[in-house]
Amino acid sequence: MDLTGIPVIDHHVHALRRAHPADAMAYRAAFTESGDPLQLRDHVPHSVYYRWLLREVAAALGCAPTEAAVLEARRAYASPAELARVLWPKANIATLLFDTGFLREQMLSPLEMEAATGIRSFEVVRLEALAEDLIAESRTFDELREAWRAAVGGLRAGGAVAAKSIAAYRTGLAILPVGADLAAAAFRPGRRRLASKPLLDFLLWEAFPLLARQGLPIQFHVGYGDADADQRLANPLHLRGVLQEPSLRDMPVLLLHCYPYVREAGILAATYAHVAFDCSLVIPLGPAGAARYLAEALELAPATKLLYASDAHSWPEGHWLGARVYRKALGEALAAAHRTGYVSAGEAEDDAAAVLGGNARRIYGLA
Amino acid sequence: MDLTGIPVIDHHVHALRRAHPADAMAYRAAFTESGDPLQLRDHVPHSVYYRWLLREVAAALGCAPTEAAVLEARRAYASPAELARVLWPKANIATLLFDTGFLREQMLSPLEMEAATGIRSFEVVRLEALAEDLIAESRTFDELREAWRAAVGGLRAGGAVAAKSIAAYRTGLAILPVGADLAAAAFRPGRRRLASKPLLDFLLWEAFPLLARQGLPIQFHVGYGDADADQRLANPLHLRGVLQEPSLRDMPVLLLHCYPYVREAGILAATYAHVAFDCSLVIPLGPAGAARYLAEALELAPATKLLYASDAHSWPEGHWLGARVYRKALGEALAAAHRTGYVSAGEAEDDAAAVLGGNARRIYGLA
Amino acid sequence: MDLTGIPVIDHHVHALRRAHPADAMAYRAAFTESGDPLQLRDHVPHSVYYRWLLREVAAALGCAPTEAAVLEARRAYASPAELARVLWPKANIATLLFDTGFLREQMLSPLEMEAATGIRSFEVVRLEALAEDLIAESRTFDELREAWRAAVGGLRAGGAVAAKSIAAYRTGLAILPVGADLAAAAFRPGRRRLASKPLLDFLLWEAFPLLARQGLPIQFHVGYGDADADQRLANPLHLRGVLQEPSLRDMPVLLLHCYPYVREAGILAATYAHVAFDCSLVIPLGPAGAARYLAEALELAPATKLLYASDAHSWPEGHWLGARVYRKALGEALAAAHRTGYVSAGEAEDDAAAVLGGNARRIYGLA
Repeated sequence: MDLTGIPVIDHHVHALRRAHPADAMAYRAAFTESGDPLQLRDHVPHSVYYRWLLREVAAALGCAPTEAAVLEARRAYASPAELARVLWPKANIATLLFDTGFLREQMLSPLEMEAATGIRSFEVVRLEALAEDLIAESRTFDELREAWRAAVGGLRAGGAVAAKSIAAYRTGLAILPVGADLAAAAFRPGRRRLASKPLLDFLLWEAFPLLARQGLPIQFHVGYGDADADQRLANPLHLRGVLQEPSLRDMPVLLLHCYPYVREAGILAATYAHVAFDCSLVIPLGPAGAARYLAEALELAPATKLLYASDAHSWPEGHWLGARVYRKALGEALAAAHRTGYVSAGEAEDDAAAVLGGNARRIYGLA
Repeated sequence: MDLTGIPVIDHHVHALRRAHPADAMAYRAAFTESGDPLQLRDHVPHSVYYRWLLREVAAALGCAPTEAAVLEARRAYASPAELARVLWPKANIATLLFDTGFLREQMLSPLEMEAATGIRSFEVVRLEALAEDLIAESRTFDELREAWRAAVGGLRAGGAVAAKSIAAYRTGLAILPVGADLAAAAFRPGRRRLASKPLLDFLLWEAFPLLARQGLPIQFHVGYGDADADQRLANPLHLRGVLQEPSLRDMPVLLLHCYPYVREAGILAATYAHVAFDCSLVIPLGPAGAARYLAEALELAPATKLLYASDAHSWPEGHWLGARVYRKALGEALAAAHRTGYVSAGEAEDDAAAVLGGNARRIYGLA
Repeated sequence: MDLTGIPVIDHHVHALRRAHPADAMAYRAAFTESGDPLQLRDHVPHSVYYRWLLREVAAALGCAPTEAAVLEARRAYASPAELARVLWPKANIATLLFDTGFLREQMLSPLEMEAATGIRSFEVVRLEALAEDLIAESRTFDELREAWRAAVGGLRAGGAVAAKSIAAYRTGLAILPVGADLAAAAFRPGRRRLASKPLLDFLLWEAFPLLARQGLPIQFHVGYGDADADQRLANPLHLRGVLQEPSLRDMPVLLLHCYPYVREAGILAATYAHVAFDCSLVIPLGPAGAARYLAEALELAPATKLLYASDAHSWPEGHWLGARVYRKALGEALAAAHRTGYVSAGEAEDDAAAVLGGNARRIYGLA
């Protein structure tokens, strides 16, 4: 199936940096999750994704398919955003939902992104970044708690379309209700980095009912998506306590990335009406296997539960190629499902439209 | 490979309800593991299985392929059993092994099933249901223990061909030997629901040697198969303590469902002579991926270790389509294995016969 | 892709036994991980690998494709090594790295292997076997510790090209730094078998810096590879503490086997420059799925991170067929990746050469 004509909503993406990469190592760093300089130097150039990316960028910019030529050709554009204006129209991207809590100072804001690219942009607020800002400003735990409740309670009014939690790579997805006493004992004024499990879990359980009241979705980082993550703690099955809580059914839960726990995420999405998921990051990082991940994702979970995302950041190549790899893989997965005889041609078309945009429109309430 | 001519033994199935579904929601509920009303209302109609099922039932009953038309056409039959008499002959089902511990009052008994359908039926006794009956009748822990040992010790004589445990979705598969004191302390006369880990684990370890003495197989629910299950506790690797116990090698162990832990179940079946497994429930619930699960199941484990089951319940559609999906997927998986060159044509035929019936006949001692 | 012309380095293999198998059961035992006599008797003959192996050996030796005929035909050769001289030239094996800690008395030494087969052979020292030798000779914990540090510190000088740990099937891969007091308390002079977690973990953390100083790689048994292993403890994600330790980055880490945790191993190899992995044992034991495991292995991890190994032992059939299955599967996986369009023909060729030998040459410093 050819899905190039269907515009995508990328429901989990990061902004472009203000300036071009300083060198090849900085360029490569956006196309791997490894932060290890030796991995960047010796191994990333031998990854399927990076090799293919160089060929594609070279073809788009009209230069030789080498890293040096690509880096040189990119410099003809004043900034990453200028390059995006060349590459992104090829990707038919309708809407972007930005996590604004990652590398904040070096990144363009959603407003700047929209101005530079003409693509409709929305903000997703990273709860841990918000909490760390408030911790820095709070002298006491009660002050923090009050500020937190006010901030989380006002997210929808402030224009956010979702919250996001990176608990998976701080203290894990087994997020437990915690007494205020325990959280207060873990609070240290001035200690900015939020790495205390009682404190983070407490703040999240404070936030959940406020999100539910606003009908605001929460995105959870799951599985492969950050070298910081202990993957044992990033299994989405650990979210069971949150997902089973009857009072939180009005808080849509989006499981991001999910690899290698795609089947587990599919089970959760097949079980709970308020749970949906994506296969970002491993698509496009593992492009040769992308159709397989999507076949797994769609095998149990209804097609109303899978979303598109790239998790791209920094340079515009990722946003562009993410959409390309995903559309191609989804077309292959749906064609294969159609060949089994269990999916009709019309259903495959409906499913493609749902996954590439319809589900995100419904869950985030986008017009 | 076309396997339609091979009769199947469905070694893990539930009975039909006495009456037709009250409405569309009740109809849908048998074709998903979700108990969430909103999942039933908004998402199940977009699942691969349910959409395909409506088309197949419509074709079989000669009505339009819509849910409303299907529900209307079904009403021409006096009961689910009457409908089964139309659908089941298309599925070439030789024998059914019934778990009689699920929704007991609303379901036909194996005897009634056999009378209504003419298909040979055997009983599998759900140990937790048996225990709960005895707990309700026991005034003391010693009374319970004595009644339990008598009941379990008499299962074979009472006509059961196997026992079944749903420990996976009560207190988990890490079933540990427990002292009687600890179990007794957890016993509460009159508290029917068996959700205490010391008490359930104790009763199971009391039962295991009695089952071994009778050579009676035990089925364990594993992995995806109930919304109640915490999937972290339903991994079959947790059964290691039971499987390693030398004195229990005469108790055949059947791992049911297994998805997403198909590889783990295959490892156990490749390691222990007394362990076998199936891929029920995800087949037929995830039909487009069925050939893949079976390829995984058959990659390490000998073909003498995989069984057929549908885990269908309530309406006769599941029993019928389960056999159809499974035969088609098994034929594809074996044909693909043959194409690799590692499986001869004759071996693929032998394996099909073993998986669809021979293994169940051997393990359950069916004539 | 036809890779038969590329010589392989088998970086994880065991030696041949001195004498032929006593009977069919002893023959079968080398082609399964099960130690269960009933599995050997009733099920191994129905495994894909064993059935195919009999056909291949029969064709090579010119006898009927039955077990009895194969066992008879093998007796025409004076020893397993004599048979190897017939079979191994068909496998184009360049170099073998031997774990010499398994069934030591019954096996040929690397020197004997090289003399008998003409294939370049290197030694990998199994740390637990080394420790057990030293424990048997030590009267006190301090004596053991000193002897251990001396032995491990001298591995490179003694000719070893790597160390190997089987902690996964003793006390698990969550190998933790342990105080000397705790380890000393677990030391019992004369108790040969090393099954104490504090003692084994302590010895390994003593060894790691010494290996890093020598730049000597360590192989970790991971996942499916021994019936002894509790697979819950054999997940490579448990190694996180070792892999994150900055001072150990000069100790290359090789994850052996990895199935069913192939995706998890791929994530680690995509994250840490000093981590690489293989898919041994499940290739060739699960030959019909081999191309799928390799596709998974290569989907995220750079091609510089995957190695070839057979994990064969005892009879020469495994070393021979291991190389055949692996080459065929790798050729199929790379051809499939090329068909997706993400891998060029030249890259697929480069990757094949890296996986079959180049990566092992680089990591082990072989000429």
